[in-house]
Amino acid sequence: MVIVMTPEATRQDVDAIVDLVATAGGDAFVSRGVNRTIIGLVGDITQFGTLNLGSMQGVADVMRISTPYKLVSRENHPERSTVRVAGVPIGPDTVTLIAGPCAVETPQQTLEAARMARAAGASLLRGGAYKPRTSPYAFQGLGEAGLRILADVREETGLPIVTEVVNAHDVDLVASYADMLQVGTRNAQNFALLQAVGAAGKPVMLKRGMNATIEEWLMSAEYIAQRGNLDIVLCERGIRTFETATRNTLDVSAVPVVQRLSHLPVIIDPSHSGGRRDLVLPLTRSAIAVGADGVIIDVHPHPEQALCDGPQALVDGDLEELARVMRDFPPLMGRLPAAALTPVA
Amino acid sequence: MVIVMTPEATRQDVDAIVDLVATAGGDAFVSRGVNRTIIGLVGDITQFGTLNLGSMQGVADVMRISTPYKLVSRENHPERSTVRVAGVPIGPDTVTLIAGPCAVETPQQTLEAARMARAAGASLLRGGAYKPRTSPYAFQGLGEAGLRILADVREETGLPIVTEVVNAHDVDLVASYADMLQVGTRNAQNFALLQAVGAAGKPVMLKRGMNATIEEWLMSAEYIAQRGNLDIVLCERGIRTFETATRNTLDVSAVPVVQRLSHLPVIIDPSHSGGRRDLVLPLTRSAIAVGADGVIIDVHPHPEQALCDGPQALVDGDLEELARVMRDFPPLMGRLPAAALTPVA
Amino acid sequence: MVIVMTPEATRQDVDAIVDLVATAGGDAFVSRGVNRTIIGLVGDITQFGTLNLGSMQGVADVMRISTPYKLVSRENHPERSTVRVAGVPIGPDTVTLIAGPCAVETPQQTLEAARMARAAGASLLRGGAYKPRTSPYAFQGLGEAGLRILADVREETGLPIVTEVVNAHDVDLVASYADMLQVGTRNAQNFALLQAVGAAGKPVMLKRGMNATIEEWLMSAEYIAQRGNLDIVLCERGIRTFETATRNTLDVSAVPVVQRLSHLPVIIDPSHSGGRRDLVLPLTRSAIAVGADGVIIDVHPHPEQALCDGPQALVDGDLEELARVMRDFPPLMGRLPAAALTPVA
Amino acid sequence: MVIVMTPEATRQDVDAIVDLVATAGGDAFVSRGVNRTIIGLVGDITQFGTLNLGSMQGVADVMRISTPYKLVSRENHPERSTVRVAGVPIGPDTVTLIAGPCAVETPQQTLEAARMARAAGASLLRGGAYKPRTSPYAFQGLGEAGLRILADVREETGLPIVTEVVNAHDVDLVASYADMLQVGTRNAQNFALLQAVGAAGKPVMLKRGMNATIEEWLMSAEYIAQRGNLDIVLCERGIRTFETATRNTLDVSAVPVVQRLSHLPVIIDPSHSGGRRDLVLPLTRSAIAVGADGVIIDVHPHPEQALCDGPQALVDGDLEELARVMRDFPPLMGRLPAAALTPVA
Repeated sequence: MVIVMTPEATRQDVDAIVDLVATAGGDAFVSRGVNRTIIGLVGDITQFGTLNLGSMQGVADVMRISTPYKLVSRENHPERSTVRVAGVPIGPDTVTLIAGPCAVETPQQTLEAARMARAAGASLLRGGAYKPRTSPYAFQGLGEAGLRILADVREETGLPIVTEVVNAHDVDLVASYADMLQVGTRNAQNFALLQAVGAAGKPVMLKRGMNATIEEWLMSAEYIAQRGNLDIVLCERGIRTFETATRNTLDVSAVPVVQRLSHLPVIIDPSHSGGRRDLVLPLTRSAIAVGADGVIIDVHPHPEQALCDGPQALVDGDLEELARVMRDFPPLMGRLPAAALTPVA
Repeated sequence: MVIVMTPEATRQDVDAIVDLVATAGGDAFVSRGVNRTIIGLVGDITQFGTLNLGSMQGVADVMRISTPYKLVSRENHPERSTVRVAGVPIGPDTVTLIAGPCAVETPQQTLEAARMARAAGASLLRGGAYKPRTSPYAFQGLGEAGLRILADVREETGLPIVTEVVNAHDVDLVASYADMLQVGTRNAQNFALLQAVGAAGKPVMLKRGMNATIEEWLMSAEYIAQRGNLDIVLCERGIRTFETATRNTLDVSAVPVVQRLSHLPVIIDPSHSGGRRDLVLPLTRSAIAVGADGVIIDVHPHPEQALCDGPQALVDGDLEELARVMRDFPPLMGRLPAAALTPVA
Repeated sequence: MVIVMTPEATRQDVDAIVDLVATAGGDAFVSRGVNRTIIGLVGDITQFGTLNLGSMQGVADVMRISTPYKLVSRENHPERSTVRVAGVPIGPDTVTLIAGPCAVETPQQTLEAARMARAAGASLLRGGAYKPRTSPYAFQGLGEAGLRILADVREETGLPIVTEVVNAHDVDLVASYADMLQVGTRNAQNFALLQAVGAAGKPVMLKRGMNATIEEWLMSAEYIAQRGNLDIVLCERGIRTFETATRNTLDVSAVPVVQRLSHLPVIIDPSHSGGRRDLVLPLTRSAIAVGADGVIIDVHPHPEQALCDGPQALVDGDLEELARVMRDFPPLMGRLPAAALTPVA
Repeated sequence: MVIVMTPEATRQDVDAIVDLVATAGGDAFVSRGVNRTIIGLVGDITQFGTLNLGSMQGVADVMRISTPYKLVSRENHPERSTVRVAGVPIGPDTVTLIAGPCAVETPQQTLEAARMARAAGASLLRGGAYKPRTSPYAFQGLGEAGLRILADVREETGLPIVTEVVNAHDVDLVASYADMLQVGTRNAQNFALLQAVGAAGKPVMLKRGMNATIEEWLMSAEYIAQRGNLDIVLCERGIRTFETATRNTLDVSAVPVVQRLSHLPVIIDPSHSGGRRDLVLPLTRSAIAVGADGVIIDVHPHPEQALCDGPQALVDGDLEELARVMRDFPPLMGRLPAAALTPVA
């Protein structure tokens, strides 16, 4: 941590800070310039955070120089992690395709979507039983009935399930069905939910808040990790910007940035970021090429009847090209499609 | 709702839409131009929302032309509302000052802050017992012990309490102490929480999500209203932009925009938007002058010891000017300070 | 300037930086911590900027701690400045109203708008002869014919003229008519234009780029100041954000922030930021209350016929309230309306 | 164009609009609903733009439904275009690498950078002689001396030159040296400059404004096209968002969006968007995979001595991987590296 003093700061102001830091068990190095004095702090940053140094007399600015997260940081865990979801790897050696319907609507629709997913090379099935919707008048999901449908389809297809949970109260119920719990963009700073999924004993997919900085996203992951769960997969799904041609702006740069800061795997959701079917395949290719550890994609057998996000779902006619992308692009990245490793029975 | 067809759309495509809309009980008016056909839909928009018209053959764009919220809309409730919190009005005739510490830390600190609030003309006491913090290592609030401190200080000062709730599970507990429940910016789309506070029988202050459009903010209010609670006060607290000189960018324009769209009162939080003590008084004046129905401000007897957001709290030396602003500006807006109407014993 | 080394940086890496800084005539103070070393640089920051320290071996981050502008900075010029435009003051003691049509269309329209401006308490007349328009098919202004109209209306009404220049090549021509040159938001980083107006010998109003940070805005002012012209008035006119209910988001916080960083006056444009007539008066009040040194407002005698930005122009029916705002709000800020000091003949 | 009337609009209000549209030579189709009336306009949108329909009595909203650009639109030119720069193609069949130093500093540095570019598979040489810099104290480029260096290096290496022009006044001079003129992000709405490059008879690379919507970007291209020059290549280079981990946020989605709206080629600048050397290769792969028609990349023989943007330049050690990317990725997109078609002597 570095403290920059104002030009008017006195020697007493500087001494007061040095003393305070010493009290907190740290060391303070003072650099006196012609116009300004800088104080470098060395020690436990968590400790310094409670000192409220920014309010001290003569302080112009307090700059943090180390990362505020620990458990998810790559500094203390240089090797990149692989998370396994019912045996399916998500990590640096593979590209994992997760696909399925945005929302579970009927057994038939879910089963058809799961078969589409498998045909395209998916190793995991996505599908929402609890849907956080901007409007209270929109379809909110089937709830537990949806979870049962997913379990039946898993039985039928062999694909493990990734599904969203929107309320701390429902975590145990959802975890009793799911292979991986998803926390959505609107709940990225719902700390009670993060703590609950951290304690649930299942892998977690944490979507980036649409207004979250990369640092805030990693801090949210830290909430989960603190409860003893490091099986976390980060998912970039677009951030909110001024551009309205796409629903959100997919931040592909976030993938290499996060991979340098954290050991956790990071995947991309090309369906929700663009919000348009014609963008899904280009963004999927872009995701793999930038180094994402996987992608999560909406497919629907009859998108014109979808109760949620139909306009962005891939349809039958897109699957061949998706399968080609999943086959041809990972090798250029020195990776295997996860489906090649964990063939579904 | 208006549907714009692509230049290539056929007569059959248009007819298919007209038929579908008729099935849903609506009327479709077709305007055929040289290059494009436009279809105007008349009827129940909620119904049309489920039709997934955007996925129909030949459709270029679907444009909504009416507001998606109803209960909080001014269209169906032209008179602006006044919400009463334990008798204290927040509405079009008054300017209400809510003040207090960001977080409840000790009985002594809370009592001193409440006295500062009263001296500055506050009618309501703010103070957080549950704090949603970006970092899991930061002070998370005293929980129920904090609520008890607030209740004691209410007893002592006569100021009703506004306090945040961060988890649907805690709503009943917090409501048993609070006079008004606050939903914070990070929970603005935590729909389970919105529904729970909607059912709790207490007035609610709903902060704008830092990335929420005005329309999304009103949709979040609609979630609360749907549970039968229209005692909602909206609070603008800054949105996230590229500017880093302030913590967030206070969107004062949102006040007149919201007052035109909704009958609900809207107040401003000048403390959290700027994140800097030197901005609080200018932004408070600006808030009253733009027409806000109130302001909510952090004060702290010893900000250098604050466990949360110390750098933005007003201190003793600021109170006189705050009192002057609360006295001189409301009359120019044809309003009274709320404190003039509901003198605290 | 502070250099943060990576945890892996060697003693040689640190020494190389100390030596390089010494070569550039500066001093480097080294603070060695357990995990990281920090180097504080003291000396001429402009010099260090050319050293490309960020590319040196072992450097994790380079943090600037002083402002990169000098001439417009308040550090070297603590007293806030007053700029005079043909005798009319814009500065800390007054609130100056600049009003007029967005674009000069006809002599009659311009004269009527000027009379509206005067009736509302304006001391300066705005009006565009050169209009930068997003579309090449939109009205681009009358050019020199428009300047002649403005000069005639100045003759008739006594109001000095503020008008925009969009091309370095036109600066001398525009300066031969105008009392103050305006640089618009789209040209906020058109450095050739900034240098040309800096050399023209007339006061300049510099609008903030709609995507400019406050620091970048002040750097643009520094370009003007470098050519020997410190008669610069800054104008906040809204920044681009995700919110679409208003054309741009007016950043009122920028006013006190800028007034602390720079000695230059700063005014607000409530017309272009909101883009809606119903927001102009609320934002004008908000601007004065936050401490702006003036406001610039569009008025039009017949906005339904306006060739540019008609929907945001104030009309006859609004003038009485504008005049009241200009009379009642400045005294609460300890200021006078500029019109009270410089009565137009 | 669709006009949405307010619920209170009268039959007279509607008739007034129908009459006005007829006067302008258009047709108006009226759809009367229970709550609202919608009017669809058919005819020449440019004509309607001057009617100021938004200011008419009873109008709630005016929605444009066709694109405001024509010459660059794909609607009127369905085939995607290939632009040739001194024979080098940029278009749908190839992936073109443009590389070179950010700024021309010395003959030696420029020649070495050009050789690096060629080794990596570049067909065109980039290099700036005029640099638009945020700070007036930063290196502003060598001017015409820099252009002469570029011409000498072209002579030596056979690589045609792409270089920036920042001032309408300099266009003829720069065009006398350059093979392609570049308009930078800060000048994306410098309309005088756009018109000047449109008239210069050389291909133009138009960078997206860092705050420009895709529509505004295409409108800027329309300014160039209007002067008779359709040899325009669009360049996405990152937009400004709240994220600070990267200099700007590269908007890869813009590539397929633009390719659907416009026939012009679109390339990506992975160097300036991220501002970090470690992001350049991942973003280059991502750019090719999303379908970009080319990439433009900074290389520097000695980035630690660079006068501009050293931290983002690729160095010798990166060239092999860049060459591999340029060789392996285009075939997966059904394209050839441009260098394979136009081998440099």
